[in-house]
Amino acid sequence: MSDIDPGQARPPRRVRVDLPGRAYDILIGAGLVDAAGSILAERLPDARLAIVTDETVAALHLDRLTASLDAAGIAHAVVTVPPGETSKSFRQLEHVVDAILAGRFERGDAVLAFGGGVVGDLAGFAAAIVRRGMRFVQMPTTLLAQVDSSVGGKTGINSPRGKNLVGAFHQPDLVLADTSVLDTLVPREFAAGYAEVVKYGLIDRPEFFDWLEWKRAPIFAGGPERAEAIAASCEAKAAVVIADEREAGERALLNLGHTFGHAIEAAVAFDPARLVHGEAVSIGMAQAHRFSARLGLCPGQDATRVEAHLKAAGLPTRLSEVPGAAIAREVLMAGIAQDKKVKRGRLTFILTRGIGRSFIAADVDAAQIDEFLAEELAG
Amino acid sequence: MSDIDPGQARPPRRVRVDLPGRAYDILIGAGLVDAAGSILAERLPDARLAIVTDETVAALHLDRLTASLDAAGIAHAVVTVPPGETSKSFRQLEHVVDAILAGRFERGDAVLAFGGGVVGDLAGFAAAIVRRGMRFVQMPTTLLAQVDSSVGGKTGINSPRGKNLVGAFHQPDLVLADTSVLDTLVPREFAAGYAEVVKYGLIDRPEFFDWLEWKRAPIFAGGPERAEAIAASCEAKAAVVIADEREAGERALLNLGHTFGHAIEAAVAFDPARLVHGEAVSIGMAQAHRFSARLGLCPGQDATRVEAHLKAAGLPTRLSEVPGAAIAREVLMAGIAQDKKVKRGRLTFILTRGIGRSFIAADVDAAQIDEFLAEELAG
Repeated sequence: MSDIDPGQARPPRRVRVDLPGRAYDILIGAGLVDAAGSILAERLPDARLAIVTDETVAALHLDRLTASLDAAGIAHAVVTVPPGETSKSFRQLEHVVDAILAGRFERGDAVLAFGGGVVGDLAGFAAAIVRRGMRFVQMPTTLLAQVDSSVGGKTGINSPRGKNLVGAFHQPDLVLADTSVLDTLVPREFAAGYAEVVKYGLIDRPEFFDWLEWKRAPIFAGGPERAEAIAASCEAKAAVVIADEREAGERALLNLGHTFGHAIEAAVAFDPARLVHGEAVSIGMAQAHRFSARLGLCPGQDATRVEAHLKAAGLPTRLSEVPGAAIAREVLMAGIAQDKKVKRGRLTFILTRGIGRSFIAADVDAAQIDEFLAEELAG
Repeated sequence: MSDIDPGQARPPRRVRVDLPGRAYDILIGAGLVDAAGSILAERLPDARLAIVTDETVAALHLDRLTASLDAAGIAHAVVTVPPGETSKSFRQLEHVVDAILAGRFERGDAVLAFGGGVVGDLAGFAAAIVRRGMRFVQMPTTLLAQVDSSVGGKTGINSPRGKNLVGAFHQPDLVLADTSVLDTLVPREFAAGYAEVVKYGLIDRPEFFDWLEWKRAPIFAGGPERAEAIAASCEAKAAVVIADEREAGERALLNLGHTFGHAIEAAVAFDPARLVHGEAVSIGMAQAHRFSARLGLCPGQDATRVEAHLKAAGLPTRLSEVPGAAIAREVLMAGIAQDKKVKRGRLTFILTRGIGRSFIAADVDAAQIDEFLAEELAG
């Protein structure tokens, strides 16, 4: 634990995700990579660890993690995949599964996902299916993964026919979110994760949004407010997920900004050079507020305030900010119509009555969306 | 429904598998392939069907199934895999998943497994992971699949490192077991499935074993006793599975005959020309009784009676009956030691105090097994 900055050596925050029969803790704080060995030795005694990571994270942080496990006497093996979304494939799944089986890991052993959302989704899916279910520990290394993937139990890979179309629900036994590893993220990636933090305020926690407006700078700078913001985000997501584990109803609120966002991502062919997921969500959330304002549901000043906060965080809020060729309205509409939240031709959108007052609108008129997009692209 | 033999046009038997929150029915009877359309139209209204089958079953029975679905106005698509164990692979899994996604099937639609255990395991696994879980209907076409795979929720594929090492628990919404399709099985395959029927009597239902001794001939000939035997087997397995869904304890009783059996299968490299699964289980069950008798646990006359009944059904009961090169004791012992029921070096076996009186013995001495096998191979 020699690498802990004494100024940050406070105990980690703990968020309890209270799923019936499968409750687990998320520990959030600086220095958890170095403390992983001693924590896991207590929390998962006798479990050997199959660490799944990517080349980027391995180069930056793996030595510290394995040193910590060695010091605690925890047996482990490592399987590395290339960084990036293309690793969410049947090919890499088979590679990871084979490595776990080659290491003779059993059901009581654990798969440890050490990386961002791609590694978490891939490793979690492998943990779900090897021997019909192994234990699973997440150590998310991006802000997006810490506030999004660490709660909800969604795991999976992509298909050539669409993203996340193949997977399983598999809850972790423990999540360790080391806030200090986020210092190695490029600013753009940190900001993209922050879009999801803002989302939790916008869904149903207006006082959290107020607090973010006040504390944005220390969150970005790595002050103790960072762990506080991550913990609050995990708590917010956990509350929604516990109420609706299998995504039958209220969980759809987590899609705030995501219907527009997914359509924008698809329109740029998921090219991260043009737009990453959090940036698309940022534009999508700003659009959801502007569209709600246009329908007379949301005060215009709330839409303005949301846009200002996202901008201040370095996030895009307008289609015109996406670099490269202009996006066509028809392409966006096609993407929206294909979104899995469409039921029998009617469009389901997450709309809002103001900051922290989002709701599921199950019967939105496609023509109004089309008009709105025309205005957005003209403006 | 024109193909139903009027002499067999009695309503199907129903076995309720009463898993909390995921209860489902198994319907068992002659003519269910032809009745599938009308039953599914009532039981799963609005569900489209992705039928997974193999080339052998498709050639024999698929036209009747699709005609029945067409008559009921149920939309469907078909994906076919090669027959045999090699289809339980990542390659065929990806093929089936892609076909389901290509057909734009959604979560509320169903995957229908139409075939034996291989098709059921593969299709069920695909149903478990496409969109993180679709509905699932099983139409098992072998006796083994009707009495074994239709209860328990185990799905999965093989790995080069072992059988069934990758998979998921995924319960069906409905099982339709058509007893008349079993008439197209070769006698050896029917007998192999019958070994698992006998197993349920041997575990804890002595009166069922008595009944099987009495009714073996009409069960094999396709009389109404066939559906009765299948229903009793499904009920017996359901009782064990409901008590222990995730295989933590009592479910291990279902492995009666399987520790010896798996070792024998491995020793012949899973070559179906030498031995199929049910035949290995038959030898394994006879051995479990002889070994138990040798330890003074089981009356010798019970072991003799079990052996006589299996023989009368056309099943092997001795290692010497396996065609090809003699099996070495060392090879069997290695297979037993590798079995997944081994914990920390001690051998867990299902032993018995007599017909219908099986129990889990967690601490069997490997040296005694070794001596027993030496005698078996000498005799």
